[in-house]
Amino acid sequence: MIETSLKKLGISLPEAPEAVGSYSPWKIVSGNLLFISGQLPVKGGRLPVKGKVGLDIGIEKGREAARITALNALAQAKAAIGDLNKIRQCIKIAGYVNSAPGFTDHPAVINGASDLLVDILGEKGRHTRIAVGVSELPMNAPVEVEFLFEVSI
Amino acid sequence: MIETSLKKLGISLPEAPEAVGSYSPWKIVSGNLLFISGQLPVKGGRLPVKGKVGLDIGIEKGREAARITALNALAQAKAAIGDLNKIRQCIKIAGYVNSAPGFTDHPAVINGASDLLVDILGEKGRHTRIAVGVSELPMNAPVEVEFLFEVSI
Amino acid sequence: MIETSLKKLGISLPEAPEAVGSYSPWKIVSGNLLFISGQLPVKGGRLPVKGKVGLDIGIEKGREAARITALNALAQAKAAIGDLNKIRQCIKIAGYVNSAPGFTDHPAVINGASDLLVDILGEKGRHTRIAVGVSELPMNAPVEVEFLFEVSI
Repeated sequence: MIETSLKKLGISLPEAPEAVGSYSPWKIVSGNLLFISGQLPVKGGRLPVKGKVGLDIGIEKGREAARITALNALAQAKAAIGDLNKIRQCIKIAGYVNSAPGFTDHPAVINGASDLLVDILGEKGRHTRIAVGVSELPMNAPVEVEFLFEVSI
Repeated sequence: MIETSLKKLGISLPEAPEAVGSYSPWKIVSGNLLFISGQLPVKGGRLPVKGKVGLDIGIEKGREAARITALNALAQAKAAIGDLNKIRQCIKIAGYVNSAPGFTDHPAVINGASDLLVDILGEKGRHTRIAVGVSELPMNAPVEVEFLFEVSI
Repeated sequence: MIETSLKKLGISLPEAPEAVGSYSPWKIVSGNLLFISGQLPVKGGRLPVKGKVGLDIGIEKGREAARITALNALAQAKAAIGDLNKIRQCIKIAGYVNSAPGFTDHPAVINGASDLLVDILGEKGRHTRIAVGVSELPMNAPVEVEFLFEVSI
């Protein structure tokens, strides 16, 4: 039916584009969802690094900041479900990079979070992802990242 | 298993950071989801306030605009499920603040929506949240906020 | 109970605002979710059009770019579930427009994705939506769009 509709519209689907980092182009979910609020790269209650990636700090510092948000998210998950082995999969992360004008390598920055999730959770850590550049973030944080997991409860 | 993986990687999880507003760091969901499109602070079909927070308008006007988006979202919820008592919990809001360069207090602005949800729905209104600054919003609105509820149907 | 709370707070809900494009103000979901990563308007592995909408390219080119992201998303969906007829509904898209300063017609750009989904999937293609302007996108893409479907598996 939809194939018919595509044909009628004269549209042929492209090849599905590949992921450009340690994440997944898609994920199917049927179980319980664990939503985690946007995490800033806070350590002990304060931001060790501030500013815009590509101006105040470089990609490497940005990636390290993204890594800290993933650690914070796992800490939230542990607070929520008690045992991290109850994580079935990481479904999605949304990464917002505090970008200098002209900075466009947001995937390299957000890889800091993606890589850590896969390092710690293995294939269950592979997730879908969006990574965009924004003009300002709370407290002038270099990144803010939102996380979504599927969990057994 | 994951604890082992953490140990192997030499990583210890931090304390889970606290929420900085009337929202929740995490939420677990197993039921029906009610997605609501991004709401602008329209009143009677038009925007009473426009512009960038921190330049054209102050935090207080921004917060009031965020409050209006939450009212609009509850109106959408009522249109969707008929009875607001069918709301089990507000799961998530995503707040985009039309930010002046250098404006970084997005949480204070989006609190206008968060506080209203808790005022009206009580503890069921407490949600996870992301709040970021963006460079432009549709119609030059000061905020746009997306909402997600768990509902019984 | 919530109506009582509204009354106590002296708040009356507004009319639910209408959608400003071929999307839906709300959606209720109870089944399996298919998350798709943020899609860039890549064709054959590269970006045919780059830059900021309202500066480097006009609305029409931006809309065409958004349309390509929707094609890519359907290609991802086909890779994920094999048969596009297993799509029960498109639940949500999140459209990020690489905006020139002062460009505020993000809905017109993201309509390129929304319209295509409805053209191909019919009423099942109607979704909730958020459309915002951001200062920078990966590879200087004009748009990045995230997609969420309900599917039978």
